[in-house]
Amino acid sequence: MGNVNIKKLALELNLSAATVSRALRDSYEISAETKQKVLAMAKKLNYEPNPSASNLRSNKSKTIAVIIPEVANNFFSQAINGIEEIARTRDYHVLIYQTHEKSETEIAFMQKLLSGRVDGILISISNETTNNQQFKEIIKNLPVVFFDRIYEDIDAAKITTDDYESAYNATQHLIDSGCKKIAYLSALYNILTGKKRIEGYLDALKDNNIPYCEDLFIESGNDEQENLKQIENVLIMQKPDGIIASIEELALPCYYACKQLKLNIPADVKIISFSNLKTAALLNPSLTTITQPAFEIGKAAASIMFKILDKKYFEPHETLVLKSTLIKRESTG
Amino acid sequence: MGNVNIKKLALELNLSAATVSRALRDSYEISAETKQKVLAMAKKLNYEPNPSASNLRSNKSKTIAVIIPEVANNFFSQAINGIEEIARTRDYHVLIYQTHEKSETEIAFMQKLLSGRVDGILISISNETTNNQQFKEIIKNLPVVFFDRIYEDIDAAKITTDDYESAYNATQHLIDSGCKKIAYLSALYNILTGKKRIEGYLDALKDNNIPYCEDLFIESGNDEQENLKQIENVLIMQKPDGIIASIEELALPCYYACKQLKLNIPADVKIISFSNLKTAALLNPSLTTITQPAFEIGKAAASIMFKILDKKYFEPHETLVLKSTLIKRESTG
Repeated sequence: MGNVNIKKLALELNLSAATVSRALRDSYEISAETKQKVLAMAKKLNYEPNPSASNLRSNKSKTIAVIIPEVANNFFSQAINGIEEIARTRDYHVLIYQTHEKSETEIAFMQKLLSGRVDGILISISNETTNNQQFKEIIKNLPVVFFDRIYEDIDAAKITTDDYESAYNATQHLIDSGCKKIAYLSALYNILTGKKRIEGYLDALKDNNIPYCEDLFIESGNDEQENLKQIENVLIMQKPDGIIASIEELALPCYYACKQLKLNIPADVKIISFSNLKTAALLNPSLTTITQPAFEIGKAAASIMFKILDKKYFEPHETLVLKSTLIKRESTG
Repeated sequence: MGNVNIKKLALELNLSAATVSRALRDSYEISAETKQKVLAMAKKLNYEPNPSASNLRSNKSKTIAVIIPEVANNFFSQAINGIEEIARTRDYHVLIYQTHEKSETEIAFMQKLLSGRVDGILISISNETTNNQQFKEIIKNLPVVFFDRIYEDIDAAKITTDDYESAYNATQHLIDSGCKKIAYLSALYNILTGKKRIEGYLDALKDNNIPYCEDLFIESGNDEQENLKQIENVLIMQKPDGIIASIEELALPCYYACKQLKLNIPADVKIISFSNLKTAALLNPSLTTITQPAFEIGKAAASIMFKILDKKYFEPHETLVLKSTLIKRESTG
């Protein structure tokens, strides 16, 4: 009996060589029925895969890219470490790009990566991103997994956290702690992450019969000094008794503003923040946080990427939602 | 008069076309005398460079790589931002690799980058790195700038900070604040950065006639729990009145250990740390730090890389040393 290769199998089965090859790799593109047929014939003819050819075919760049707004952000640096933990087990390299919230940079990186320098992209989109047409083109050509900051209406795997519930719970926690005038420092309002958090805040107010006050809703930006001034202004003019910082970068300016205005946290104003700050427990006072499972999100995103690369799994419409944790500390005590 | 190109100039000057081309680009490889001759002839013959050809020649990957131990480290994330600020002005992309202090990973990345995917590498070496033979091979083929964590005996541009003076000043500051038993939490002892800091500590003790005590010298590692235990042990057994944390990662464990042992900072023990923590001023108590000019180091490293890429400058033996700042706060007050 001659040497059995994929061509021979294909001939016997009256299928294309590509179909047989995919079936043998357990690709999602091939039906279960066809896979069974192929495996049965492979067994019958004593087909043995050629390991070096298979290796050649499957070893591409052995690199995945991570595109994020900033590395100087505890959430993202922890997520990257989660991604790398998984990549290491697969002997993959990870390369990291920062977009600094610029949509143009994001698209330029992705275009560059289409040349084959990476096998897939894990991305957390910039806040500036509003038009996702170009993304839709790119994901036709390269596997992309979105994490934390995602597009709702794009056919790709997505991992995020329970932003709505977290913001709702944060607001409820302040109300339960006696707050009646709760300022909300918003951010990321162009993208789903920010929108869900705002919704959570608004719904918690409504459910507690607290009217929404426009003057307590602050739109923060990328300018640190400007953000600090806005926080000082709202503290002076509106005298809120609670503040929700919807991103970590807005928590410390609250502390500086209170110091400046000689306001006591939590006696005068209680503060809660979305944050993965390692020093949250050591601040003066320690900071109550909504902490996202950053490391786990990174691990989950990378695991899904490898499933896609293995062609064993592909559920483009699925969104995996992990839970954040509300950690009560002195700032709301 | 015909079209004057580099070949024509070379013919007139009796030089090779490559030499003329380099002279016109102001390359360091060409002597000042030859450059003058070439420029004079170019002027005489009304030579005009062909802009698109020059563009084609100089545009390579338009990407530089940054190889660092960790992004979840304020020093490195700020340095990256400095690098990117310069890269943006040159329309370059920056890609980031983490080594997690593994020498093997570091070499694997650099080998991979030799294929032409980047025009140059900025690197801060891992603590594990002890043999630099492979580095010496790599830098023959690709421009490399070392920053912060450098090799002393390698012919490449290097940017670092005044590690010896900073550690000396930190020790002197504790002594001036009344400390007599100063524990030193060492790290990075395989590389120059760590060694210089240790020297600074030892010399300051000596200059103040304080005998060195082995039991106050702690060799920390990568295991956070182990580091914490070591710090608790030294606090219990040796009762130091001052601690120097030689890297940021060791400062917070000191705070946790003191909390655990009900020791008051600074009354019972004063703490100073090398750190770029954004929250240093907001900790309880606020932390006295030696803060490296991380953003400026990144900018300087990238600027030198572009000088090398422009072939306008190349001083392989030069080490640029920037100064760190001692910021006094409550933890040594």
